[in-house]
Amino acid sequence: MGELQLIEQIRRASHPSQNKAITLGIGDDCAILRPPPNSEVLVTTDITLENRHFRRNLHPPESVGHRCLARGLSDLAAMGATPIAAFLSLALPGSILAEKSGQAWITGFFKGLHILGELHRVPLAGGDTSESPANLILADIVLLGTAPKGKALRRSGARPGDALYVTGQLGGAAAELSALLARRRRIVRIATIDGHPHLFPEPRMDTGEALLRRDLATACLDVSDGLSTDLAHLCRASGVSAEIEQAALPIHPLARKLGPHRALKAALHGGEDYELLFAAPAKLRMPGSIAGVPVTRIGRFIPKRSGRPMMTLIAPDGNHSPLEPGGWEHFSTRAKTRR
Amino acid sequence: MGELQLIEQIRRASHPSQNKAITLGIGDDCAILRPPPNSEVLVTTDITLENRHFRRNLHPPESVGHRCLARGLSDLAAMGATPIAAFLSLALPGSILAEKSGQAWITGFFKGLHILGELHRVPLAGGDTSESPANLILADIVLLGTAPKGKALRRSGARPGDALYVTGQLGGAAAELSALLARRRRIVRIATIDGHPHLFPEPRMDTGEALLRRDLATACLDVSDGLSTDLAHLCRASGVSAEIEQAALPIHPLARKLGPHRALKAALHGGEDYELLFAAPAKLRMPGSIAGVPVTRIGRFIPKRSGRPMMTLIAPDGNHSPLEPGGWEHFSTRAKTRR
Repeated sequence: MGELQLIEQIRRASHPSQNKAITLGIGDDCAILRPPPNSEVLVTTDITLENRHFRRNLHPPESVGHRCLARGLSDLAAMGATPIAAFLSLALPGSILAEKSGQAWITGFFKGLHILGELHRVPLAGGDTSESPANLILADIVLLGTAPKGKALRRSGARPGDALYVTGQLGGAAAELSALLARRRRIVRIATIDGHPHLFPEPRMDTGEALLRRDLATACLDVSDGLSTDLAHLCRASGVSAEIEQAALPIHPLARKLGPHRALKAALHGGEDYELLFAAPAKLRMPGSIAGVPVTRIGRFIPKRSGRPMMTLIAPDGNHSPLEPGGWEHFSTRAKTRR
Repeated sequence: MGELQLIEQIRRASHPSQNKAITLGIGDDCAILRPPPNSEVLVTTDITLENRHFRRNLHPPESVGHRCLARGLSDLAAMGATPIAAFLSLALPGSILAEKSGQAWITGFFKGLHILGELHRVPLAGGDTSESPANLILADIVLLGTAPKGKALRRSGARPGDALYVTGQLGGAAAELSALLARRRRIVRIATIDGHPHLFPEPRMDTGEALLRRDLATACLDVSDGLSTDLAHLCRASGVSAEIEQAALPIHPLARKLGPHRALKAALHGGEDYELLFAAPAKLRMPGSIAGVPVTRIGRFIPKRSGRPMMTLIAPDGNHSPLEPGGWEHFSTRAKTRR
């Protein structure tokens, strides 16, 4: 497969007609987008590197494509935005372009990307391709979305007294990854993308949009680096402290299987769950689920005071202990950090 | 240097206040932009890989940063757009993050990016960082710009009878790269960025904006892959053929030094000049320079006819020969291809 055929494959994965905000898709120097009137444009980029964010002998290519797009979509969901277009920069090793098994990998990758993109009506509108200078796959995904002017959910709006909520369940992605690593063999086929929180995370697009539209959140972000790390981002941006009720944490069934200690660790520090973590006034009557996704109150925000921990975990017996950020470290010893 | 310090360095290179279209820069899940009313948003992404687009022992880091940004800016210039924000995804080897010489590399890279960004009032508004899984530097740049609705210059507007123009001079970047490769030693310091068409190309932002504003072009793109390759893109997108007058080609003084044969080859097929190649009605009175950049008429568009070459080169003696696309091949045997 030459790069021109690769570009043709990308073009097939692109359906600009799917989204009327795309005036011009792949094929010119730039793509052209027309955001709706009175909207703001939101932009996020996420780099995905082989052996750092995925392993070729562990992750099916459909999962790699899905997760690339899911990471960017989740950043839009965290601000309540509606996605309009994705851009993909992709560098592939010469061996993948040359070999038949490599072509199957590429097809699987775009299938994963495409199915998730269709679900959220976000086509590929452009990008760049190159041959990778090493035997490593590199992908960078850019997502553009829109939100009504001045309404995007930021990290900085939480106030003391606000309640702390999380969507869905925590620790599932870390638990599934840990099971995959223990198996040490590649899963070639999986029957469905449901129930695979690590391989096929579900970005909470509709829930994020509903939080914005129904004015339910004072601050929001997504749990990409782990609850303890992301909550610390929220606390710092908002200038508040937080308390978490351990008993209230919605722990994913896959994490529960690990036993209570490891389950708690996965829920607090496991990353890549792509759930939404948000603040809302304590008096606001929060629905039990939003856009079909359960919402759980897991704690509250309190005033920030020097000498007091930024985050506190309250055990079922009432014991308070400081909670340190300890997010997910992917496959390396260095923690992933965000902008 | 840890990744947090790296992000701090990126943040310092970011000056959202430089551009009032940026409502929220680095620090949340997404950046927020407010394009002017009645405008369209243009997006382009360009991946830059060590050993493919640059070599660490050949290119000063300032040049690598400059060229990353210049590639994206030039795509905006080609459509007549005004840049509003850049996003950078950067993966650096652990050794660069750990070593003092690596920190100097990072500082130089951001200096190059920053100086060009300041010149065109386009700050870094976000991005992503990661440790590279190999000893290779990887960068992906995303540029967002705006243009008045429906006015962006596309590749598809050239008509038979239109004249063909190019800005500046051709072949300079290929000639300078060839000189650098012949030297086989790294240039550690250079006194000025002027006169280095390969190391510090000048994207034609003001000229592109003027072409759009003054309605001077029917089609436009930038010469990133070489005149012969990019003209072929323009011909295909517009459904026309083209004739080039060899004697009219504005050959860069650095290319002239190579002798007539190699100079012509550099002008026709050398890539990365980042000049603008555009079509305009033959009767339109074209200024000799636009926004301070010389503009040269180098040929014309004719109807496309089967059996006739898409591009023809007319030698000074009047001899016609078919011109095949033969763009720049970077450091590999595989031609760079675009969307």
